[in-house]
Amino acid sequence: MTVPYPPQTFRTTRRVEFSDTDAAGIAHFTAFFRYMEQAEHELLRSVGLSVFMQVEGQEITWPRVSSKCDFRSMAKFEETLEIAVTISRLGEKSVTWSFHFTIGPRDVASGEITAVCCRVNPDGTLTSTPIPPLFLTKLRPFLTPDS
Amino acid sequence: MTVPYPPQTFRTTRRVEFSDTDAAGIAHFTAFFRYMEQAEHELLRSVGLSVFMQVEGQEITWPRVSSKCDFRSMAKFEETLEIAVTISRLGEKSVTWSFHFTIGPRDVASGEITAVCCRVNPDGTLTSTPIPPLFLTKLRPFLTPDS
Amino acid sequence: MTVPYPPQTFRTTRRVEFSDTDAAGIAHFTAFFRYMEQAEHELLRSVGLSVFMQVEGQEITWPRVSSKCDFRSMAKFEETLEIAVTISRLGEKSVTWSFHFTIGPRDVASGEITAVCCRVNPDGTLTSTPIPPLFLTKLRPFLTPDS
Amino acid sequence: MTVPYPPQTFRTTRRVEFSDTDAAGIAHFTAFFRYMEQAEHELLRSVGLSVFMQVEGQEITWPRVSSKCDFRSMAKFEETLEIAVTISRLGEKSVTWSFHFTIGPRDVASGEITAVCCRVNPDGTLTSTPIPPLFLTKLRPFLTPDS
Repeated sequence: MTVPYPPQTFRTTRRVEFSDTDAAGIAHFTAFFRYMEQAEHELLRSVGLSVFMQVEGQEITWPRVSSKCDFRSMAKFEETLEIAVTISRLGEKSVTWSFHFTIGPRDVASGEITAVCCRVNPDGTLTSTPIPPLFLTKLRPFLTPDS
Repeated sequence: MTVPYPPQTFRTTRRVEFSDTDAAGIAHFTAFFRYMEQAEHELLRSVGLSVFMQVEGQEITWPRVSSKCDFRSMAKFEETLEIAVTISRLGEKSVTWSFHFTIGPRDVASGEITAVCCRVNPDGTLTSTPIPPLFLTKLRPFLTPDS
Repeated sequence: MTVPYPPQTFRTTRRVEFSDTDAAGIAHFTAFFRYMEQAEHELLRSVGLSVFMQVEGQEITWPRVSSKCDFRSMAKFEETLEIAVTISRLGEKSVTWSFHFTIGPRDVASGEITAVCCRVNPDGTLTSTPIPPLFLTKLRPFLTPDS
Repeated sequence: MTVPYPPQTFRTTRRVEFSDTDAAGIAHFTAFFRYMEQAEHELLRSVGLSVFMQVEGQEITWPRVSSKCDFRSMAKFEETLEIAVTISRLGEKSVTWSFHFTIGPRDVASGEITAVCCRVNPDGTLTSTPIPPLFLTKLRPFLTPDS
């Protein structure tokens, strides 16, 4: 797969809301997992896609199979996190999103979400399926070259 | 409607989890709305019902039409809230749940959730419907007499 | 108190994030309470204030004493809520924020948060205190005239 | 370090609450991170400890430095997750908690939280510090032998 270099990076921000903080006075660690998913969905919207979408008469969705985050400094109420999103792996049926959180020059956290492409069956169950070409074309520019 | 006196009160507890707290060091006010709904669902389970349920071949659910809570003292991390649940109004198509939160002798909060009985249509939309007799029979004992 | 007519309305938006939705496919009712608080804090920032702030050498904060919300229609994943914020009551020691949620022409919800002005004591406890003139001056334009 | 074999496993449960679900009808992936932390805190309480605690005149707390979770099947509203907690690594200054989620015979998810032992300085900042003997003694029985 020929990947453009450097890859495209999607950038967004999230303010630490009061409801995201905990009694230690900082954004609770679970908030970063919400921020990651929100940034993923925002990237999808930015290229005309959605995490729930009809593709060729088929409802496609992306259940998460794993997620992780490393925390290097703390984020306080009303601070604004800058979030950089790339794709570290684009497999036949799955995608691994990478997220890097900073506040100005400060490194805050980095994490990943791996999601598998599924079609929704008529009975509501899910079956993994190759990523449709529409998604591949629009996601590939975000793939990091060493992937 | 003949209501037994005194009404039955459903009692449960919720510990304030760390993820429920905020930077002020107390349970965030939105946590109480989650606790209320959880207590409502727990009451329903205790009498063999569920907030999503097939009744006479019809899927019944209870969207919320209003909710409120008054806060009188603060709840800290790891404190255990005792929650008393009654019903303050049982209409033809709606129910108003009442919740009272205490920690030992301390009055913490009280609130309400009003939910309307709906059937789920084949297309997923909802239509309000009279509360099925099965629900009325099981909920009436919790109705406060001055309702 | 002479209140300008019409009052100033603070407007912001919130997209319904996937983590805000529930198994009924809509924004969970507790999400609206988070949105209300976030809009309140955003209004405060827009006039140079914060919900946690040093005023005349005194830390000032605003614990919630009550909140309520009425729900009139449902908000789905990725819909954008427009939120209009005014103040319906500005007392000596408390403020009642009013919020109206719409999606385009559709009326979605309206709610209130009442917060009491407190100073933070050296031991971390709170004592209610008259709203500082700095806050009164900056909040008064948002007061609705029939308050 | 001599570790008892087999290690002690702490077991607890969490019901999937409606507010934990998302529009896909299952527990949102971020809920598992909350469940993990709640189980960690419950284990600590079960041996007389707390995640915020005075030890030898020093406030000790445990900020998270990383967390991850792998998801293998879905958990629906009102299902009860059984959670098994052990410790996979007990370092000089950090602990890695391991969590395994099942619903009856079904494997649902497994994850980890790594937290570093810190003392709270008078100015509120944190400094990493060796795990106090009180904690080591009470945590060691949960350490898996191949750690």
